[in-house]
Amino acid sequence: MAAEMAEQPDRLAALLARRHEIAGEIRALVPARLAGTVLVARGSSDQAATCGGYLLEMATRRPVTSASPSVHTLYRANIDFSGYLVVAISQSGRTPEIVEVVERAKASGARTVAITNDASSPLASAADVLVALDAGEERAVPATKTVTAQLVSFAILAQALGDIGLDDRAGDELPAQVAELLADPGPPAEVAAWLAGTSRLATVARGLLYGAAGEVALKIEETSSLFATSFSAADLRHGPIAIATTGIPILALAHPGPASDDVLELVAELRSRGANVRLAGPVEGSVMSWAVQAPEILVPVLAVVRGQQVALALARLLGVDPDAPRGLTKVTVT
Amino acid sequence: MAAEMAEQPDRLAALLARRHEIAGEIRALVPARLAGTVLVARGSSDQAATCGGYLLEMATRRPVTSASPSVHTLYRANIDFSGYLVVAISQSGRTPEIVEVVERAKASGARTVAITNDASSPLASAADVLVALDAGEERAVPATKTVTAQLVSFAILAQALGDIGLDDRAGDELPAQVAELLADPGPPAEVAAWLAGTSRLATVARGLLYGAAGEVALKIEETSSLFATSFSAADLRHGPIAIATTGIPILALAHPGPASDDVLELVAELRSRGANVRLAGPVEGSVMSWAVQAPEILVPVLAVVRGQQVALALARLLGVDPDAPRGLTKVTVT
Repeated sequence: MAAEMAEQPDRLAALLARRHEIAGEIRALVPARLAGTVLVARGSSDQAATCGGYLLEMATRRPVTSASPSVHTLYRANIDFSGYLVVAISQSGRTPEIVEVVERAKASGARTVAITNDASSPLASAADVLVALDAGEERAVPATKTVTAQLVSFAILAQALGDIGLDDRAGDELPAQVAELLADPGPPAEVAAWLAGTSRLATVARGLLYGAAGEVALKIEETSSLFATSFSAADLRHGPIAIATTGIPILALAHPGPASDDVLELVAELRSRGANVRLAGPVEGSVMSWAVQAPEILVPVLAVVRGQQVALALARLLGVDPDAPRGLTKVTVT
Repeated sequence: MAAEMAEQPDRLAALLARRHEIAGEIRALVPARLAGTVLVARGSSDQAATCGGYLLEMATRRPVTSASPSVHTLYRANIDFSGYLVVAISQSGRTPEIVEVVERAKASGARTVAITNDASSPLASAADVLVALDAGEERAVPATKTVTAQLVSFAILAQALGDIGLDDRAGDELPAQVAELLADPGPPAEVAAWLAGTSRLATVARGLLYGAAGEVALKIEETSSLFATSFSAADLRHGPIAIATTGIPILALAHPGPASDDVLELVAELRSRGANVRLAGPVEGSVMSWAVQAPEILVPVLAVVRGQQVALALARLLGVDPDAPRGLTKVTVT
């Protein structure tokens, strides 16, 4: 896991170097007037898809949805995808239900894109356009370099369909910003120490960072068996805020931008209720930061790297093997 | 909370008695060819919307999505909703961001429906068609009768747009099936006793019951401050299954149908890993059942009532007031 995390600056730089080529293929595929976009993913890829959904909705200005594979694979509903862009995301490209949804969508008229690390996988073959992550083989069970590559792929896809701010400078600076985090393991080690005695964790964010909060929770859960859940700041206020007084650690993610005030206000409210809350990101009172100058569309990559660092440090603190957590396998068949 | 739960058979019967009238209004509103459907909700209403999304996708045969309000209210993205049906669900009809999304959607060409308990609320005024829950004032903070009325409303909406199996017999039998559960508090009391010593709960289901699993988790979390999360059976296999060996109680919901085998197989796998798992529904090995003859489209109502009973019993066991859980208010402004 540590070795694969360390590859990220180079892998992301290589992917970003292909951004204009990928954008060209996407623009050639996608009609000028979309009905909408459907994302198909599970696990960590689904967290990346949550981030990607925000970017694609802002870029295409049409609604974006996450597919419920069971509608197709179990209930056999014959959904009409004509006019839609369908983007399937799978590290292995081998989760059968994801391949099946793409095949059904294509047959009913969708334009389809596969984001996968295996260019020879069934998913890569099923889609009209392949966005190959080219992240190299990922052997550790917790996905790291493929997840950040998925996040960057979504930014490239979205920028191909509408200006979301992924200019050449933003793209060129990202690998160094990731490298800077990897060279600074101290703050995540302190967050891991804060979590070492607990069996529960809630992460919280809003907007573009919401999916990153999900991936941070999932990564920590995978490596440490800690029961972790992510919340949108808005949803946490609806009912789950009841947990604030139970001592559960709450890790909030924020980056200066349209969504940050909402998170900072929630953190203040949680603190006033006596909650055990810590803040990450380049904001006041943060215990773990990242590059403040990164554009918000790429910040999920930085937050996810911070989460990987916490997950790795916590596994080591707990004396468990982060590469092969108990009971998990790399490809999940559902 | 108990009094409001007890009203459900009568309130649902009254709503179902209006089903042909509501269906007529919906059919008059919705164009023959939809681009898709967007659902807008938070909290318990969002869990009902998850169930409703499956029904509407199967009925309309076009993709259904849940809106991310922050895209509109924080990032001010100018999304084009033309060709879409937008369904907003809010008990109070007074959550400002939900009203704002409906107003923006309508202005950009969507047909809009409000499902709310307050026919004089801003949300009711903003939408083209109002589906009034007419559940009577709900005073307990944990929403009960409005949630089951929302679930029934979704079944009525979906049936108006495509045959999903809500025939008159199915509708007529539901209130008695709910009454039968309310008269049988023993099994949920035993589930509550099982949960009384824990600080965590995972619920799991798949397909039409997945949203119900979310509402069961949320209801128990609201009344008892227990940290509860729901999973799709498919997602639980992707990473979170790491928690199976930590002793966390896992409550699985299943009803005979296309999705039940997947849940039962997961339960068997969890048991083989030594997980602390219990099963609810009219299936073998269940600790808490409901009417097996109910059509799967209405089963979320029955599962949610079972969850309400567990939440109420657990609050009483823990000596907390289920009507006014600490730190929660009825209308949440985000």
